[in-house]
Amino acid sequence: MTKSLDFFRERSRQIIHLRGVAQGLSWDQETMMPPEGAEHRAAHLSTLAVLQHERLVDPAFGAAVEALRSDDDLQPEDRAAVAEAKRQVDRATKLPPRLVAELAEHAVLCYEAWVKARKASDFQAFAPWLARMAELKRQEARCLVDSGSPYNALLDDYEPGMTTTELDSLFGRLRPALSRLLASIQQRSAQPAGLPPGPFPRTVQEEIGKQVITAMGFDWNAGRLDVSAHPFCAGFSPRDVRITVRYFEDQFAPSFFGMIHEAGHALYEQGLNPTRYGNFDCEAISLGIHESQSRLWENQVARSRPFWSYWLPHLQKAFEPVLADVSLDEFLRAVNRVRPSLIRVEADEVSYGLHVILRYELEKQLMEDNLPATDLNEAWNARMEDYLGIRPESAANGVLQDIHWSQGLFGYFPTYLLGNLYAAQLFRQAGQSIPDLEERISTGDLRTLREWLRDNVHRLGKTVGAAELIQRVSGESLNPDYFLQYLEQKNR
Amino acid sequence: MTKSLDFFRERSRQIIHLRGVAQGLSWDQETMMPPEGAEHRAAHLSTLAVLQHERLVDPAFGAAVEALRSDDDLQPEDRAAVAEAKRQVDRATKLPPRLVAELAEHAVLCYEAWVKARKASDFQAFAPWLARMAELKRQEARCLVDSGSPYNALLDDYEPGMTTTELDSLFGRLRPALSRLLASIQQRSAQPAGLPPGPFPRTVQEEIGKQVITAMGFDWNAGRLDVSAHPFCAGFSPRDVRITVRYFEDQFAPSFFGMIHEAGHALYEQGLNPTRYGNFDCEAISLGIHESQSRLWENQVARSRPFWSYWLPHLQKAFEPVLADVSLDEFLRAVNRVRPSLIRVEADEVSYGLHVILRYELEKQLMEDNLPATDLNEAWNARMEDYLGIRPESAANGVLQDIHWSQGLFGYFPTYLLGNLYAAQLFRQAGQSIPDLEERISTGDLRTLREWLRDNVHRLGKTVGAAELIQRVSGESLNPDYFLQYLEQKNR
Repeated sequence: MTKSLDFFRERSRQIIHLRGVAQGLSWDQETMMPPEGAEHRAAHLSTLAVLQHERLVDPAFGAAVEALRSDDDLQPEDRAAVAEAKRQVDRATKLPPRLVAELAEHAVLCYEAWVKARKASDFQAFAPWLARMAELKRQEARCLVDSGSPYNALLDDYEPGMTTTELDSLFGRLRPALSRLLASIQQRSAQPAGLPPGPFPRTVQEEIGKQVITAMGFDWNAGRLDVSAHPFCAGFSPRDVRITVRYFEDQFAPSFFGMIHEAGHALYEQGLNPTRYGNFDCEAISLGIHESQSRLWENQVARSRPFWSYWLPHLQKAFEPVLADVSLDEFLRAVNRVRPSLIRVEADEVSYGLHVILRYELEKQLMEDNLPATDLNEAWNARMEDYLGIRPESAANGVLQDIHWSQGLFGYFPTYLLGNLYAAQLFRQAGQSIPDLEERISTGDLRTLREWLRDNVHRLGKTVGAAELIQRVSGESLNPDYFLQYLEQKNR
Repeated sequence: MTKSLDFFRERSRQIIHLRGVAQGLSWDQETMMPPEGAEHRAAHLSTLAVLQHERLVDPAFGAAVEALRSDDDLQPEDRAAVAEAKRQVDRATKLPPRLVAELAEHAVLCYEAWVKARKASDFQAFAPWLARMAELKRQEARCLVDSGSPYNALLDDYEPGMTTTELDSLFGRLRPALSRLLASIQQRSAQPAGLPPGPFPRTVQEEIGKQVITAMGFDWNAGRLDVSAHPFCAGFSPRDVRITVRYFEDQFAPSFFGMIHEAGHALYEQGLNPTRYGNFDCEAISLGIHESQSRLWENQVARSRPFWSYWLPHLQKAFEPVLADVSLDEFLRAVNRVRPSLIRVEADEVSYGLHVILRYELEKQLMEDNLPATDLNEAWNARMEDYLGIRPESAANGVLQDIHWSQGLFGYFPTYLLGNLYAAQLFRQAGQSIPDLEERISTGDLRTLREWLRDNVHRLGKTVGAAELIQRVSGESLNPDYFLQYLEQKNR
């Protein structure tokens, strides 16, 4: 058995190293790589993916996993690693190589078609490509599960254990509540003003952003901050986690909250147990839990009164005189402004959930073959009007706005909203476990919260699933009411 | 046979991709990586090395190589790729994994011992570690060749086809000639002055350096320039070649010539035939030929009168008023100053060769078991006095100055001097093929020379060996007289 475990660990390490390297190369591609490096870079990433897949589907690895599954002497971490490996081996071995290749090829073409269609705002030019992608993803799902909604099989890749039944229940409760809240906010006579249009010099934004994420506990000895066209967080390893940001000199909020969002992701990665690095349990639980860490810092913390009662004076001094006349109340109203808009990534906290639910409903219909791709534009617009009270004037600002579907990422969108739900429930629990949390935040102490998250979430890695984590931390299962209460309280 | 070729190419591509990725990660390590990333980075690099080696020694790959060696229908590039693969497979399969592991482990400890010993300037503390390294390398050499000097087997890793017989002949001719030239220069009454001590602001150094390497034809769409503690050139691929530099604000020359040196390496990589990328022929011929490309630009071009007759006014303007009073003659004398010194990497063009010859002679004796490691310090000092007329006052500035031996790099040093010989012979030929070369350089045109090097050296990759290249380009075999003539003419 020791021999199986040694072999299992050695191969696990190789697979995880190849993934870490690939993530690092993707970071380099967005931040450092000269333009003509792209073609060979794609080839390098493809080779790394092939080698990784080869190892995952190697019968010897599968046999070691099976042998270890019935080993009662394993430590809990190894048991979790074996279970996660089993999940990944199953997914990898059940998919015929022909289908994997076809999906990869179609993703390239489908992406190109999406770029063109979005530019021309012509959904029907994209529809046949999307239809084919949906068909291939349905085939993939059928390979992975025997019965039930094919959507579950895809969802499981991003949010292991989550099902359409649970999402239907969660989102079914949230949708009317969010729509009602949104409408009620819209009906108020006084809408808050935005922030002054700067200038917010880039170097000052960088400086103040670094101060805040340092206060959050971002470890600069195990991470970096750089600039890229789209902000992201990518890690070579838990001890080398890189985040990126994009600056706009006429706006302060996008870069600032973007940086905190990515730093929230980074704290999760940096907080994984580094002595377990190279094992399958030393990974984030799910995309939803990952997103909870970024949203918790971005929203629950960095859009709150305690946070700004400490940081606003720093900000005013740094950007003097631009924000000199803005009061704390005005500032808070400005960074929490709710206003339905067409674009998901620019949405406020209330409408954001509705954007996600709309996508979830449509992509589930697509996967269950209940909606022809050609009808998607109209279905999108109708739901936008229904849920948010606005209708896209063009497909570019509607159904064509996100890259995800062109890449075959079905089942991914729900994790964005799940992240908000997990965040609200975890933050509520943090407030109960650390009674003076608000006071600490209002005096600039963000580390106490980081420590709590590290102990209760980050260190665990994948030794628990998402449902078990929430149950364990908060004493109950995932409950969307905490998110609704958070929003209602904020928007009273 | 097509099947063998397809398989051969696919596996070649994987091996070369893994190497490109590893090189890129090494670049990242020296320029971007946060300090705590080091441990996992080492693990990543080790995994990439294991996977690469695994593929090289795979019997199926070896069989494909053997099958293709007797295939008369192969294109010349594929034939060259097969021959190079054969060389690498042989090296990889002949070494027992136990020895490879022992060497890797000992290199770590030996390096640590070297760092400590150098700090304390205590050669005897390092001697036993070096003795063990030498013993392991002798074992390696015995695995690789049946007869002759074990040194040849090690040399072949860096300079395929080169032998001690040829080196003894080349260096035997050079040593007395260089010593004589050095002594005669020393005997002159008037020694040239150095350059003023700045200030040479870093941003200005970077700006002027970029102008020069842009003029050389460095392709910024396929490369970058960054800062690191020790300058180097590393490529992810021929379309992504990165060089680094280090600035000293009180000195202009080290950064400037360092940048041009690395850009010379980079032009070689960028000049490889990108359509052959992923094949074993799309690589530099040898370390010596690689070094010839850096030295040719650094010395034959950038320390010449035509070069500075164009660039000195630019330099004077950029650093105004620091260099305002320096005439072209004074400037040329300063950047070509010859003065024996203890440290190889700071040596002038005349003494440099003597530094290398000394190391070659000593490491050959070590490998042939004619010199106990404990006697090395004394042997070093005696030869320094003999060849350069100076004696190190400490081991730190003598036998302990270079990292190479602690890493098991025996047979590497000669390539530095070979690079100078190749450079002189190639540059002489360039001058004959481009009759107005000097005039072009003196009007700022460096591209014509780059094109000539690209056509005659870079594009070929490994389709020829070093000896064949020199023969083909210059019509004769490697001849050290061109290097001597170049130095004598300069130091008349």
